[in-house]
Formats: sequence, structure tokens, C-alpha cells
Amino acid sequence: MGLNEIPKGYEALTVETLPTRLASLADVKARVGPDPESWSVREVGDGNLNLVFIVTGPAGQLVVKQALPYVRLVGDSWPLPLKRAFFEYHALTRQAARDPGMVPQIYHFDETQALIVMEYLSPHIILRGKLIKGERVQGLGPALGKFCARTAFRGSDLSMDAGQKKADTALFAGNVELCDITEQLVFTDSYYDAERNHHTPELQPAVDRLRADPAVKAAAQMMLMRFTSGGETLMHGDLHTGSVMCTDSDTKVIDPEFAFYGPFGFDLGMLISNYLMAYFSQPAHRPPDGLDAYQDWLLSVIEETSGAFIEEFKHLWATQRAGIIYPRSLWEDQGQSSDGARDGLLTHIWNDAMGFCGVELHRRILTLAHNADFETIEDTAARAKLEARSLDLGRSLLLRRPPDSAALVAMARAANAEDLL
Amino acid sequence: MGLNEIPKGYEALTVETLPTRLASLADVKARVGPDPESWSVREVGDGNLNLVFIVTGPAGQLVVKQALPYVRLVGDSWPLPLKRAFFEYHALTRQAARDPGMVPQIYHFDETQALIVMEYLSPHIILRGKLIKGERVQGLGPALGKFCARTAFRGSDLSMDAGQKKADTALFAGNVELCDITEQLVFTDSYYDAERNHHTPELQPAVDRLRADPAVKAAAQMMLMRFTSGGETLMHGDLHTGSVMCTDSDTKVIDPEFAFYGPFGFDLGMLISNYLMAYFSQPAHRPPDGLDAYQDWLLSVIEETSGAFIEEFKHLWATQRAGIIYPRSLWEDQGQSSDGARDGLLTHIWNDAMGFCGVELHRRILTLAHNADFETIEDTAARAKLEARSLDLGRSLLLRRPPDSAALVAMARAANAEDLL
Repeated sequence: MGLNEIPKGYEALTVETLPTRLASLADVKARVGPDPESWSVREVGDGNLNLVFIVTGPAGQLVVKQALPYVRLVGDSWPLPLKRAFFEYHALTRQAARDPGMVPQIYHFDETQALIVMEYLSPHIILRGKLIKGERVQGLGPALGKFCARTAFRGSDLSMDAGQKKADTALFAGNVELCDITEQLVFTDSYYDAERNHHTPELQPAVDRLRADPAVKAAAQMMLMRFTSGGETLMHGDLHTGSVMCTDSDTKVIDPEFAFYGPFGFDLGMLISNYLMAYFSQPAHRPPDGLDAYQDWLLSVIEETSGAFIEEFKHLWATQRAGIIYPRSLWEDQGQSSDGARDGLLTHIWNDAMGFCGVELHRRILTLAHNADFETIEDTAARAKLEARSLDLGRSLLLRRPPDSAALVAMARAANAEDLL
Repeated sequence: MGLNEIPKGYEALTVETLPTRLASLADVKARVGPDPESWSVREVGDGNLNLVFIVTGPAGQLVVKQALPYVRLVGDSWPLPLKRAFFEYHALTRQAARDPGMVPQIYHFDETQALIVMEYLSPHIILRGKLIKGERVQGLGPALGKFCARTAFRGSDLSMDAGQKKADTALFAGNVELCDITEQLVFTDSYYDAERNHHTPELQPAVDRLRADPAVKAAAQMMLMRFTSGGETLMHGDLHTGSVMCTDSDTKVIDPEFAFYGPFGFDLGMLISNYLMAYFSQPAHRPPDGLDAYQDWLLSVIEETSGAFIEEFKHLWATQRAGIIYPRSLWEDQGQSSDGARDGLLTHIWNDAMGFCGVELHRRILTLAHNADFETIEDTAARAKLEARSLDLGRSLLLRRPPDSAALVAMARAANAEDLL
């Protein structure tokens, strides 16, 4: 079966057909209730790509996520292979093993129907919405920093058997079309007048300045090469604040259909970038009273996420380093410290993360898929002013990497005070 | 079939059985002669891994290369999958397309027998032998520099369709066991007392100094991570002077069974490293009269190889850049120069090459598979003195990358004047 073919028997679910079609699944009946007639079904997919149903019955609730053979955001003029459900399933099982409890539990996977039946997270809501509303999540930074460190470390040659990692690399190399979306939208479209781009009209002068800078584009394309050719570990691939669901004190990660073998720092950089866009957008969402405090909290989340990543990575380095790279035979077994080697690797990871952060700060404002953080600001002049700060920080990060999260936060504060239009 | 299983029907050829067993191949008969009784067969495999036969008949000659299910150098205690012939075959076909005429023509491939029937290169001999004898090869640097540039550029996201490149990455990800040899022998064994290591006894103080340096080992392991996780393009994987065959004015590349998707600079760095070992070993092979001139020639080959690589890469960048990374839409189509982006990428490639060069300068002296350049020096005290220079330059390259080949050559001259034991 080619990646773009629709498998025989595939049929998109509807609210009406779902109960009948899933009635035979013991796992579903056990969790929702034995009588499909007693189930209620809501379609809640507000993302760009898939159908998402919440099924409620007398015994409980669950989520059914089904891929569509095209990009939902754009329509059937942009086909997208159903096989992405296969990659999401495989990524979820690996993430569940590497950071237990951080992703929804899977109850059933049907490759032909491209559907995953999984845990209903409640009362979790999408993190991006909480940040726009000015809500805080206890433990957010530590949870996501650890998640990034654990999945990165445990999917890499620091931990896996080398043959197994190569086999996994080959498996995820099939996720061509979703990687293609990232390759175009995240790394390239920002920097020229791509057909599917759109941006706030008042931002034009800043867009022109950005596209006139060959060095920024060279740095962005070096990050694209890192994305296509830096298969250090299995990344979530789309870890923005819309792929995180939280209560006031619990954090989960969803939607890894963009999973790919890539650089250690990819998820961390994308996540930090989305925190930063939440930060820059706040002046349009908060009254002046409380704005500073909430922005400070968002910056503290960046520092906590980075700190937790580094701390957990160091812990795993010290206790679970069993792969072929950086083996203990070269340092510990010779009575030497490997701290320098570890810190050199962490610098490499952080530099990558900052580069990815930079391109993400651009693409969410300039290409096809914008963030609600900015997009919900109706006053376009006000929006452009805030977006310009994001563009400017992205440019700075691509040209010069801050050495640590404290330096990054200082750069963000400086950008937040700028008036660039 | 698992990678380590011997396929049903596989049988190692012998000088006696080869004519009968290959008699039915039309391609072979056409090139050697129709009557197998008229063929003469010599086994000439002097490498570490395979059987190599030269078949001579009234109509001509050809080479039959057959993989053995173990490492020939070590014996059947070290199994090695026959599937490496499959990877060699696929690498040869890609190299032939990317730099026509630079690799032997393939006449027949039999996956079950793990054998490749190919062009007999004559009067070519292995380059390493020529360098030990003090012979020059006209056009050597340009031929190999172009080969490295063309195969690197055309196997990468600068040139290939992205899906095709991902499929090729997945295919070569199966070359696990041969990559494992590189991962252990090239990047790691040098830096600890690995069981299969051996080195010249008088070199011990230099070996101890090297292993006592955590920073060198950190740099070597960063290069290992680049090897395992830097799938920028299809590399030959074993491009030393024993994988090059030359006449006095013609150059061919053989034996790509270690082919893998790796960093652009891998082959270039390994090749330069082997030129450098030829350079350092010369005082033991040449009378003083003519030594300087020949060493100068070897250094000129390094500069020519590097220069040809850069020139050809720039030419391909300007004329054949059609892949997803560094697209013309970001520079040329906006009336801007992409020279800065290109030079940044070339710097990245060169820095990698110098790191790989450094580890190779170590491993050929300290681990299992040594080079004849040093190994044929019978006076072990004299050998150790020359080997120490190679170790020292390797260390310098890992800690500090020279900016260009002129700076590298200056470092090599300085090391060549050192007395380190």
C-alpha cells in the first residue's frame, strides 16, 4: 500500500455511525458501557488535521481520533496519508514507555480505519487556551522539561540498542508527508512569499526586513538540515502548547503524529517558542493589572522547563547511560568524570533548541498555521506590534544563541519592550 | 530473513568451484569467454572481510567479490551478515549515477550468494601501496575531491526528492553490523583498553596521554553521534587509501560496503586522514633524498582534494540545487546571493571532516585494523615515533578545527617535526 492510497474499507466516522461501528470492540464497551445505544458522541476536532470524537456512556468516556485522507484545515485539495495514525500510535507507545503517565493511554488501534481509541483526559483542556485566559498550571515546566529529557534520552543512542534505534529510524522515515509539512511550513515558507502564507497586514515592514536578511535565512536552513538529517532521537515533532493538555496541576502531551527521528533539542525548542508567543501576546489579553505578574510566570515556566530538562538529562546520563555513544568505558571506567562530555552535549542540544525556537517564532506568524495567541487579537495594529517582537527575537536567536535560559529570558524581556513598527 | 542468517543456498566460492558455478551467467561468459574450462581464477582478497577473485579468460577479465558470513581478518568467531553485499551493490549503483566512471561497472549481482561480478580495473593498484612506494598519481586530488562532492551533494536533501531520500535512509539503516564496526573501532576503541586493540609497544606513553584527556574523548564521541545521527547524505563509509585504485593517472573508488547515511564531511575527512598517515609514515619508507619532495606532494594532494571538493560543491550548489534544503526561493529568486548560506554549510562540512579526520588518525594506530603505512615499518621504535605524530595531530584536530586545508597542512608540517616520545 502506497502512503497516499486510502486502504480498502477505510471510512470516515460520523457522530451517527460511530456507535454501530465501534460496538464490537470489547475494550470500548468495557470503558463506555455495553449498549451502544446508550453512548453519546461529540465531534470536537478543532485541530488542523483529524476527526476527534468524545464518546460518553454510563460506564465512562473515551476519545476516538481518526485521520482524514486530507488536511482538514485546507480541505481535500491537500491530501495527507492516513498512515500518520500509524506513526502516532507508534510514537504514543514509545512515549508511554519512556515517560509513563504523560500521554493518553491507548485502548485500541485500527490501522485500516486510521483510528486510535484512547483515554479521555478530564478535566484537562488545551494549554494554549489556558495561557490566553491567563491561567497558571502548577508543575507545568517540570513536567514538560522532564518529558522532553526522558523521551529524548531514551530514544537515542545514549540508551537504545544501536540496531533497534536504526530499525526505529527506518520505521519513522516513512512519515514523509508530515515531515514535509514541517519542512515547508516551519523552516522555509516564512522566508519568501509562499502561496499559502498569510500575515497581519501591518506587519509588512518587519516581514520585508526579515526576508531581506540572507544570514537569517541561512541559519533557518541550517536548522532545516538539522531537522531532515539530524536523527539523534525520536521527537514528538509538534510539541506546541496546543499539543499539551492540563488541569490546574496536571500536564499531559497529545498528538505526536508528526513524530520523527531528529535532533535532541527539537521538541524543547518548539515548546519554548510557543511559551514565548504566549508571553509576547499577553498585553492584548490581560488588563495592565496582573500583566507583568503573568508574563513573569510565563518566563518562569521557560526557565523551569529548561532547568528540568537539564536536570533530568543529567540524572539519566549518570544512571542510565547504556548506549553506544558516550560509553562509560571512556570516562567512569577509567576513573574520570564525564561531566565535560555531558555538558558539551547539552550545549549542542541547547543551541539546536534555540535555533528551532527561532524559526518557530517566525512561522507561526508568517505561514499557514498561526497560533490563537496572536490570531485572536482582533485589533490588527496591536497584534502586529506584538508579532513584530516575536519576529525580532526569532531573528536574534537564529543569529546568536543565548548560552542558557536566563540569557534567553533576558532577550525576551528586551524584545517585549521594543516598538518595531 | 534476519540480517545474521545465512540464506539457504549460499555457498562460498573457491578457485575450483567458481567456473562451474558462474558458467551459466551470460554476462560473465560474454566478458571472459564462453568456455569456463578456459578461465583461470585467482583469489586476491587481501582485505579484512571478503573473497575476491579475478577471473581471466580468452575474451577478458572480471572481478567476483563475495561476502563471507564472518570477518575474514578475525575468523568465524566474528559473524558478519552477508547482506553487506546488498548495501555495496546499492551504494555502487548510486555512486555510478552520481559520479559516472569513478566506480567499477557492475555486471551481475546475486543477493543469495552475496556476490557482485564487476569490472576488473587494470592496471590499477591500491593507492595505499603506491603511496608507500613513493609513487605519484596525476589528478588524484581533483578526482577524489570531486567524487566526495558529487556523491555528497547528489545523495542529500540539496538534490534528491525528500521522500526518496527518506526511503534511501531507511534502506541503508539496515546496514547495522557494518556501521557497528565503524562505531566501535573508529570512534570508541581508541580511547580505552578494548580487547581487540593492539598498538606499537613504544607508543604507550602517548596512548596513556591520549586516554587521560577527557576533552579529546568528548570530541570523539560527539563525532560518533554525528556518525550515528547525522544522516545528511549517502557516504561511501570506508574511503581510505585502501579503497582507492589508481594507475599513474587514473583513479577509481571501490568497496562501499560500509555505505550509510551520514554527515557530508565523513568521506572527505577519512580520506584526508589516510593521506596524512601516508605523509607521517614516509620517513620510514623513503631515503632522505626525495623525502621532502614526496611529503610535499602528499600535502599538495590534501590541498587539491579539499580544493576540488569545495569547487565542485560550489558548482553543484549554483547549478543543480533542487532539493528541499536551501531552496533558491529564499535567495536567488529574491535577487539575493546565497553565497553566505553556502559558505556556512561548507564550514559545517569542513568542521565535521576535520573531526572525523582526527578520530581516524587515532584508530588506525590504536585499534584492530591498522594501516600498512605504519604497520610495515619493522623498527618499532621508529614506527612509534611517527605514529605519535599522527596521534598528536588527531588530538589537535578534535580539540580545534583548522579553518581550511592550508591551516591543516601547516598543522601537519608542525606535527611532522615533533619528537613526542
